[in-house]
Formats: sequence, C-alpha cells, structure tokens
Amino acid sequence: MTQHTPTQPQKKYVLVTGGAGYIGSHTVAELIENGYECIVVDNLDNSSYESVSRLQILTKHKITFYHTDLCDKEELRKIFVNHNIDSVIHFAGLKAVGESTQIPLKYYRNNILGTLALLELMQEYHVEKLVFSSSATVYGDATRFPDMIPIPEECPLGPTNPYGNTKYTIEKILNDLYESEKKNWKFAILRYFNPIGAHPSGLIGEDPLGIPNNLLPYMAQVAVGRREKLNVFGNDYDSRDGTPIRDYIHVVDLAKGHIAALKYLDNTKSEGLCREWNLGSGTGSTVLEVYRAFCDACGDDIPYEITGRRAGDVLNLTAKPDRATNELHWKTELNVADACKDLWKWTTENPFGYQLKGVVDKFAAQKDDFESRFITLGEGTKFEVTFANLGATIVDIKVDGQSVVLGYKDEAGYLQEDTAYIGATIGRYANRIAKGKYTLNGKEYQLTINNGENCNHGGPSTFHTKKFMGPLVQNPKKDIFTAEFLLLDFGKELNEFPGDLIIHVKYIVNVAEKTLDIEYQAELVNGEATPINMTNHTYFNLNKVNKETFAGTELRVASARSLDMDMKRVVPTGKIITREIATFDSSKPTVLGEKTPDYDYAFVIDENEKITDVNTAKRRKLTTVAKAYHPESKIGLEILTTEPTFQIYTGDWLSAGYTPRQGFAVEPGRYVDAINHEQWRESVILKRGDVYGSKIVYRFT
Amino acid sequence: MTQHTPTQPQKKYVLVTGGAGYIGSHTVAELIENGYECIVVDNLDNSSYESVSRLQILTKHKITFYHTDLCDKEELRKIFVNHNIDSVIHFAGLKAVGESTQIPLKYYRNNILGTLALLELMQEYHVEKLVFSSSATVYGDATRFPDMIPIPEECPLGPTNPYGNTKYTIEKILNDLYESEKKNWKFAILRYFNPIGAHPSGLIGEDPLGIPNNLLPYMAQVAVGRREKLNVFGNDYDSRDGTPIRDYIHVVDLAKGHIAALKYLDNTKSEGLCREWNLGSGTGSTVLEVYRAFCDACGDDIPYEITGRRAGDVLNLTAKPDRATNELHWKTELNVADACKDLWKWTTENPFGYQLKGVVDKFAAQKDDFESRFITLGEGTKFEVTFANLGATIVDIKVDGQSVVLGYKDEAGYLQEDTAYIGATIGRYANRIAKGKYTLNGKEYQLTINNGENCNHGGPSTFHTKKFMGPLVQNPKKDIFTAEFLLLDFGKELNEFPGDLIIHVKYIVNVAEKTLDIEYQAELVNGEATPINMTNHTYFNLNKVNKETFAGTELRVASARSLDMDMKRVVPTGKIITREIATFDSSKPTVLGEKTPDYDYAFVIDENEKITDVNTAKRRKLTTVAKAYHPESKIGLEILTTEPTFQIYTGDWLSAGYTPRQGFAVEPGRYVDAINHEQWRESVILKRGDVYGSKIVYRFT
Repeated sequence: MTQHTPTQPQKKYVLVTGGAGYIGSHTVAELIENGYECIVVDNLDNSSYESVSRLQILTKHKITFYHTDLCDKEELRKIFVNHNIDSVIHFAGLKAVGESTQIPLKYYRNNILGTLALLELMQEYHVEKLVFSSSATVYGDATRFPDMIPIPEECPLGPTNPYGNTKYTIEKILNDLYESEKKNWKFAILRYFNPIGAHPSGLIGEDPLGIPNNLLPYMAQVAVGRREKLNVFGNDYDSRDGTPIRDYIHVVDLAKGHIAALKYLDNTKSEGLCREWNLGSGTGSTVLEVYRAFCDACGDDIPYEITGRRAGDVLNLTAKPDRATNELHWKTELNVADACKDLWKWTTENPFGYQLKGVVDKFAAQKDDFESRFITLGEGTKFEVTFANLGATIVDIKVDGQSVVLGYKDEAGYLQEDTAYIGATIGRYANRIAKGKYTLNGKEYQLTINNGENCNHGGPSTFHTKKFMGPLVQNPKKDIFTAEFLLLDFGKELNEFPGDLIIHVKYIVNVAEKTLDIEYQAELVNGEATPINMTNHTYFNLNKVNKETFAGTELRVASARSLDMDMKRVVPTGKIITREIATFDSSKPTVLGEKTPDYDYAFVIDENEKITDVNTAKRRKLTTVAKAYHPESKIGLEILTTEPTFQIYTGDWLSAGYTPRQGFAVEPGRYVDAINHEQWRESVILKRGDVYGSKIVYRFT
Repeated sequence: MTQHTPTQPQKKYVLVTGGAGYIGSHTVAELIENGYECIVVDNLDNSSYESVSRLQILTKHKITFYHTDLCDKEELRKIFVNHNIDSVIHFAGLKAVGESTQIPLKYYRNNILGTLALLELMQEYHVEKLVFSSSATVYGDATRFPDMIPIPEECPLGPTNPYGNTKYTIEKILNDLYESEKKNWKFAILRYFNPIGAHPSGLIGEDPLGIPNNLLPYMAQVAVGRREKLNVFGNDYDSRDGTPIRDYIHVVDLAKGHIAALKYLDNTKSEGLCREWNLGSGTGSTVLEVYRAFCDACGDDIPYEITGRRAGDVLNLTAKPDRATNELHWKTELNVADACKDLWKWTTENPFGYQLKGVVDKFAAQKDDFESRFITLGEGTKFEVTFANLGATIVDIKVDGQSVVLGYKDEAGYLQEDTAYIGATIGRYANRIAKGKYTLNGKEYQLTINNGENCNHGGPSTFHTKKFMGPLVQNPKKDIFTAEFLLLDFGKELNEFPGDLIIHVKYIVNVAEKTLDIEYQAELVNGEATPINMTNHTYFNLNKVNKETFAGTELRVASARSLDMDMKRVVPTGKIITREIATFDSSKPTVLGEKTPDYDYAFVIDENEKITDVNTAKRRKLTTVAKAYHPESKIGLEILTTEPTFQIYTGDWLSAGYTPRQGFAVEPGRYVDAINHEQWRESVILKRGDVYGSKIVYRFT
C-alpha cells in the first residue's frame, strides 16, 4: 500500500460521486494509491457502504463519506462548504440500459439533475476540474458509419437508449458549460468500453442488484450456482467464432485511466479544456473468448446456450484508444484473463457481493453517520457479537440469546464521563503509567494524570472515544465472521504519545464454537518509537447482565502469582507475590459474592512471564488464563491470550448506568507500568519497522 | 368572439405551461376560440400576468392562472390535484439562444427539470396528451447536409447552442417515454420556425425583456425610437438580395398549429404516438424583404446598416411543412405583411409591452393570488385611483395625494359581514326590491330578504363579493388610463336572478382632468331576460376621510324631486315629492352637519325621468346630478350620469371600521324597486340580445 505521510498539507481532495459503486470504488483505491485524498458521496441506491468501509481497511486511509443524493442540492452543498475540494470525479448515476428503457424519466431526472446540481455547486465554489464517467454507449451503433471500427472519439454520437441519452446530454452540458467560461473549466469526459473484473485483493468488486445485465457478472453467478446457464445471443456474426466482439477493460485499468485524466487536467496550465477520451483496450474479444477465459479462471466449464441474436446488438464495438495513449499516457495493462481471475476471486470470497447473511448494522448516533454504527455478526445464530466503530468496542455478546457483557444502547452511553471503558479497545497504553511519566530515547514524557497520581488507559487520548474505520466484515467460512477495524492514531494534538500508529483490530466470531478472537496489531508509520499496550475492557456477567451483580460466578485462573502493588500509589513494586484466588488446580473455584472478594490486580501467566517481544501474537501460543462459570445460567467463559499478564477487576467502581460488581473484567496485556520497569520495558516499546501484536480469545460454553 | 355556452360539461381542460408568454398567450386565445378551457401555469420570469388578464377580457373567459415554476414539482402537483386536466401544451422554458450560451446550466435546469416534473406528474395523474413547443433550432445547420433545404422532419438533428440542446433533449425524453409505454402516450412535437407578429386585437404580443434577439421585435423597437438602427448581418449570401433566408410564421398561425396538433392527438384512437411536425410557412423571406414589409406596415423607412456576417448564420433555413399540411390539415394563412401590420398595431398601442408607467398593483389577499389584486392607475400623479378585482371596487381615489373615499387596506376589509358595500360595483340589482319579489315573463321570483323585509343590492349574489376578471389596463393617450373588468355572472347556484350575464365595468382615469368615468355594460348570454340595475357605491369624504365625519360638506343637487317612500316598508310609493335639499339654483348649499340632515333618498333627474331604455349610456347624455365641496380641503366633487335617479345616503349606519357619517354616497341608477312599478319597469329588464348600459362620472376640482 501507499507510503503513509500523515501530515501532507498539499494533498488534493477529490470528491468522488458514486464512489461506493463498482468503478467508483476501484477508482478511490487508485486515487489513494496515487496520493489523493477522497471524499465519497453516494446515495447507495445501487451500491453499499461496505465498499467504502472495506476501502478504508484496504487503503489504510480515512475516506470521508456522505450518504447524499446529488439531486438534493442543499445536502450536496454541505460537502462543498465542509471541504476544500480540488476536483471531482463524477460517477454517480443510474446505469442499467434495460431498466432505462422501462423508467426513462427516472434516468433523466437522476442523471441530469444530479449532474446539474453538482456543476452548479462547482461553479459556486470554484471547483473547476471534473472527470466525467461517460460511456461508449454514446456512440450507439458505430457500425452504421464506414471506417468507424475501432471507434475513435470523432465518431458521430447516437445513443439508442435513455441511459445513453443521459450520458450524451451530460456531455453536451459539459461542452456548453465549458464554452460559456472557457478559461475556468477543465473537463475530462471518459467514454468507457466494457469494464470487467475486480480488485485483485478480492475485497471490492461488482455487486449488481437483481439479474446482471453484463456478461461477466452473469457468468460469475452461473459459476456459483445463482443462475442456471449463460445465454449467448447469436453465434452467426461475422467474427472468429460467430459471437459479437466487444472491448473489455479491467476495472483496475479503467480506474487508473481516471488518475491519468485527473493528472492531465492538473497539468493543463493556464487555460481550460473539455475533451473526450475512450477508455478501452483497443482489442476486441468475442463472447466465447471471454467465456473460455472465465471457465479457465474458475476451473469449470459453466453451462451455456446459444440463443437468437438480441435486438440492437451489432458485430463489433471496439475502442480506438489512441487518444488516451497519446495524451493521457495511459493504456490497459491487464487482459481478459486477469479480469476473469480477479472476478473469480471476488466472486468466491463474496458470493453474494457485499451482502452477508448474519450481519446487520444500525446507526449508533445519528442516521447516516456511517462512522458511528453498531454491527452485529452472527445475527440469528446462537452466538451474536455486536461491535461499535467507537473504540472498536464490543457492545454485546449474546450466548443462546442471552447477553453476557455490559454495554450501552447507543454511542452516547459510551461517551459518558464516568463510563468505565466498557467493552472498549484500550490503548495506546492500557493500565497505569506511574505518575504519567516515562522516558524514551533519552526524552522524558509527561502524560495527563487521570487516575489518582497516575495516567490510566492512555489518558485523554484513550482509544475508547475514537472512531475506528471499517469494519471490513467477511464470512470466510461457514460459521465464521470477521470484522476488521482500523484506527489512524495520528497527530500530536490528539495523542500525547510520540509517533503515528496504524492500529488494526480484528475480531473473529465463530458461531459454531462460540468463540470471539481478538487480534491487535499496530505499526508505527511516523516517529521512532512509542510505548504501547493494548487490551479489551469487556465486563462480563454470565447470568443477569442488566439487573444484578455477577454474584455466584465461579472463577479460576491459570496462576495466583500476581504483581505486588504499592497500594498508595496503585502501581507495581516490581515484585511478584501470590494472591488468594482459585487456580485451575484448586479443588474449588473462587466464588465472586455480592461484595467480596474484590480484585483489581494483575496476575502473571507463567508461560509468558519472560516475554520481551512486542509481538506476542507472533511468538507465543494462546494460553487459557481464566475460566468463569455461573451455575444458574450454566454459561461458562474461558479467556485465552498470548500476553504475559491479565488484570482481574471486579468492577467495584462501576457507575454510568451500572452498579458496582455488575460485571467483571479480565484484561490480558503487558506488565502494568512496564515502561517504567526495566525487566518488562522491552515488551511495550514499539519501534519503527516492528509490529506490535497480541491475541485474546473469549470462549463460551 | 366565441359563442358562450356557459355550462358545457364536455369541455376539455388544457394545461398551458408558459401560457403567459408570447406564443403561449396567443395559443390560449385560439384554444378558447376552439372551445377548450385553459389553465395557465407560468413562473412569469420572462412574461407578465397582464397577458392573462388581457386574455380574460379579450376572450370573455375565465382563465385559471397559477404563478408556479414547473421545477417546483410539489406546487405543480397542486394543479393536477385541483383540476381534471385532459391535455397539456408545454411552452414553459427559457428561450434566448444568446443567453443560453452564457448561462447554460440555468437553461438545462429550467427547461429539462421543468419538463421532467411535468411529465412525472402527467404519468402519475394519467394525463397522457402533450403538445411540446420545440424549435427548428434542433436541426442546427441543416445546410450541412445535401438536399435538406427546405428542412423536412427527417433531417438529422444537431443543435448548436444550449437552448437548442435543451429542446433536443426534451424531444429525446418524450421519445424515450413514449417507447417505454407506447400505448399510453400521445406526444406532438412542434418544431417552430420564426414566429412573428401579434394578435390582431393589439392586446397581446411579444414583450421581450432587454434587447430583442429577433429581427421583428428589434425593428419594432427601432421604429418607436427605443433602438437606434437595425443591423443587417451580411448581404453577401447567395440569395435574391444577399441577405439570409428564414421562414417566418405569424404567431396566430403558429397558435392555430397547436390546436391542429391537439385535435390530431384527440382524434388518434386506441394507440399512442410520438411525432414531430414542422410549423413553418414553407416560404423563405430574406432579411431585407421582411425589413421592407415592416417599413410598409409602419409607414416609415427605419434606419438600418449592413454589417458583417454573424457567426453561425447560414444562407437558408426554410421549413418543409408538408407533414403538418398532410397530417394536421394545417397551413399558414397569414403572411409576413400581415404579421408586420399586427406587430405595428401591438407596438404602437403598447410601446413598452405590458409595462405601463403610472400603473402599479399589489396583492390584496394572498401572495400570487392574481384574482385578488389592488391596481392603481395614475400612480405618481395628482389623481390616483385604485381598483380591486373584488367587486371591481374603487378602493381609493387620491386627489393631490389626499384620499377622498372610504376604503380598506386589503380584501378582508371588504368581506366583513357588516361592511356597507364601500366602493363596490352594485348588482345584479342595486337598491331595494320590495319583499324581494318580482315577476318576469309570467314567473314569480323570490329573492333572499337581507334588508328589513326587502332585498337590497342584489342580496346574497351581490357583486361586491365577486372576483372580477382582468383588469385590462391601457394607457391609450397621455394622461388617460383605462381599466376594464369582467364578471361572468353565471350559474343559478351563485345567483338568484335568472340567466347568465357578462358584466363589463370600464373605468377611465383622466389624471389631467381629475375625472373617473365608470361605464357599465351587461349582456345576457343565457336565459331570456333578467332584472338589472347597476351602480357604484363609493362613499366620499372630501376632507378627513380616515378620521372624522364629512361635517361641513356643502351639497347641491340637480333636483329636489324625490321618490316618495313608504317609510315603514322602505320602498317607494310610486309618487314623486320634493325634499328639502339645495339645488344648483339655490342661494346656499345644504351643509351636511355632524348629525343632520340625514338622507337615504332617491332623487329624480328631470332630463332622464321618462327613461324606458335599458341602455342609458347609448341613449342619454351625461348630466351633472350633484356637486359637493368642502371649504377646509377646498376639494370639490361633481357627479354626472346617464341614469334617471340618484340615491343620496349620508352613511348614518356606517360600521365595519368606519363610523356613521364618515362618508356619503351618491348612487346614480334606475328607479328604486322599478321592477315592481309598471311605469319604471321597462328600464330594468334586460332581454336576450339587448345590452344594458350606463355611465357615471366622478369629477374632482
């Protein structure tokens, strides 16, 4: 992925309309790769926010998103007011040729009015560069003219359906607007041939609603069994194999064409322009050739049938791409085989596109605030886990329909002042740092004191109030869902710790095993080193989470060896002592009562005691460190980790809607205040080039 | 004008968008002529409500008007909800080619969005016939093809400016919509060549804002001195005289083309259609030929200069109108000379179009309710008179800036229950009818009793609560303004009198003479006969109209002979007596005091005593019947009339915001209760075929 240089004031903000769609999302990926910052606006009528969410994880970049219809000019205006936009790439529009012949008024209104609102605002806010998503459809049947195959941009236009007419009209609007103020405007009109394929990551691709109109998505659906067979419309054309010839272009090549056009506009000095470029390969493929390539990619000969010619089809519509090659210095680099391979990866990894059965989300703050969602994985199963973007928090875990963790019903609950980090991801530095002081590379740091005389859980820059990007939700195997969140923990003004971190939190929900795996990873992308210690702060109540204390819970731990504490200063002395608590070997468990025993102590995991590496996930195996069970609900919990210690806290100070001892926390992590203890220090210092990592598992029985 | 058949349930309602504009207004006139009812919607951006107002007087028809922008779909929806629309003629749109090249976005938004909103509502409300105002501009330069002059509808399209592009796009939208639901839609696309001329009445015509783009309006402005000279762009074309050839079509012919198209759609049974027709004469005229025709019409050789060719102009753009001739059975009947003659009449009678200096109007009830306006004539002069549509009421008369009549500030004042007919036109029957009873053609009628045991001033169907159409305001000579109002006093449910009347009220304001002439005219268009007696019920106060009584007013009348009254029944006995009142011959005037004398009596005008005709305006001369003067203000008033009697009422029962004796009324009219007195009866019975008429003059000194 692109090199991260977090504070680049010269970065150009590109507004991408329809950026959640097929070509839009691939172009966003390329824009970020090329150092542009993206703002996506999309009405999501025919696309999914998941593409944006996935792009954030894929690109490790914040992508500002607006769920706005371009036709709603006053909503659209807010984007121009809020952002310093340099240029626009305009994809938004209805695009199904067949549908356009059924409901033409909707196509004209949506495509033309949306464009007019956009252009009016660009005029008003002096945003004067636009790349427009046109289509080879504007040529109509180019075979009606002599010598117009391959089709050059000079070919007379003549669209033959309402969709094509809207593209044609928008081209006219752009031409007329340019002619009215030639010095102001720079318009690149890109006429796409047949975009196919998907991002090689398999994370984004085409997700057509209903029956696909296009050859490749249709074949893909046949291949995964969603459609019976492919219909080939006519094999009596004058081509190599009798089927019609089209110009297919890999969507990643197409996306790159937009970057080339944008750079061309950027590099056009002093005067305006309005110019059209074909984006095609220049190489035609027959339907059967594409069929063969796809069968090779999926390793199966999918069924097909030759049927009669389709009205309006012609022999050959291949692009002459010379103008783009010469002027934009762009040409296709991938072929149909590449596209088929990438499409097949996308299809097999996302057989129903962005829609995942068993995943639901809702807005946790305001409607359409996609940065504030609650996402439930395993919905409808016997193991459901809900996460929030805020703090990448575990909002709820339901075992056989019963909630077993504390959580709030909306984001506001988590943002209360006296909340106890309920369910949150804790960082940049979990647990206490004595007096909030530490030294690193010879420099002394002073953090804000927020807990007695110490700094606890990262102080004011704590992760539990930060909006994590994503999640990237996948369903890689039956019964397994993953959700990946990303936090760009950048910028001194927000974080008292040195350096910029990319924080990656991956949750794996196994609904069959009733396990929730948590994987933390952090990478320093700016600065030399930082202290780091992450954990999850879920409070469990295995019986009556919403009403009562956890009294009756039976607890055992892997080890009774615990950090000795200076109880006045509430930090470790550095010694290890033994506390009274049942271990796995004990004959009886420790039963947590209404008032006692009360724990807020770290215990040492013998196997990991001598840890020095910052990446325990890589070096250590998962060890079971605690088991809890409630005889009334008969729900058991095991906690595993790769970490050297775990804090047990019986929630004796819980407030903010909860009462003391309503939930208990088991927080695996590095040694408390390790940064200030030579023997533990190495494991909490992340240096540039290294990767911090750790794992925690919650297993329910 | 068209034959009036007031209750025709089979009449077709045509929604005319842009119906206040040049071609729209002429088409409305033709539609009404052809028996259609019109609803006009116009945003008045480039047109004037005056055209609608004038059309109402011209056609003697109610034209429902909506001041609505088509782009405001929810406002437009109200029209579809309120009316049972049969078909639409769609003129509304921006139309200046030159301007369109400057502000193309506004053209696209206005013209396309307006059309889409219209079509969406037509679809929703199942209104499926549309005549669309397209333009020969869609052909662009037809000379680029061989054999396309004269231009047939089959000529390939290629507009060369944003205006033309909007027309082209709308044609595409109509075609695509038709193709999507072929059975539903009937679309006639009319491609106009060059509309010129004006309505032969001189009442409506082209009223371009700013510098006219077109040849004829430009020449007209040169002729009246608003422009210096005509520029002829090139005389080196290959034509008869070297100037380019265009196809000019009289706007009345063009309007008739719309009727022909609408009838064609009406007559197309069982299936839909979408078809284009050229509306042109088929005969080209050169610029200099048109120039010569216009000079002949205006009787003057207006200055012109040959300048260089204008970019984009071509030699010849003449229509091939055969399709319209064959299919619509329409062809032009008027020529360029006719158009020049009618244009010259329009121009000389309306040198500044619909704008008249010294005339202002405001809304008297709700914004955009053009049926409820106050219109002031002579504004800014020493004699200003304000009229209302409601009751064709005299709202105010200002003499040297001082109001001398009672009136209210808005319509609501006039609609108060206890208001005393202040300033209103009184009818259908002014003054009392004994017991509300009368017989006519052997039938006995009983009116609602509203005054003691009698019916006064027409009872519940009184004119003072009715909205008069218009006014048609003109400024025929310096210092003279006219305002004509029309009331269709139709329908038994609203009027207790028999028969349908067209009531015409004409006011003539002479600001130099400080006179206000009132002319009443009524025509029976349905039924055999009706009683009728009209007057104006202005209350004068020549001194302090808004604060005090008229005390001190000196009054003299033409005659002290007065109708004897049965004071119990408040109706005439039939005898004439003499009352105590100063006549013009008396040595001293009657001075009206704070309390006395109190009059509510009718006096007889000797010259007109024996009147038998219902049209006094035609048969009688104006006679001065009363003079009033106030020594404090030094304002004098003379009242003249053609009528046989005048009621003097000292306003002793005034209320509704006024106090007794704040104003006095002098109401010329027929004999009180004449309908029930054999000797007077003939003068108040209007028979079918006769015309009722009378005149009143208020002269101030």
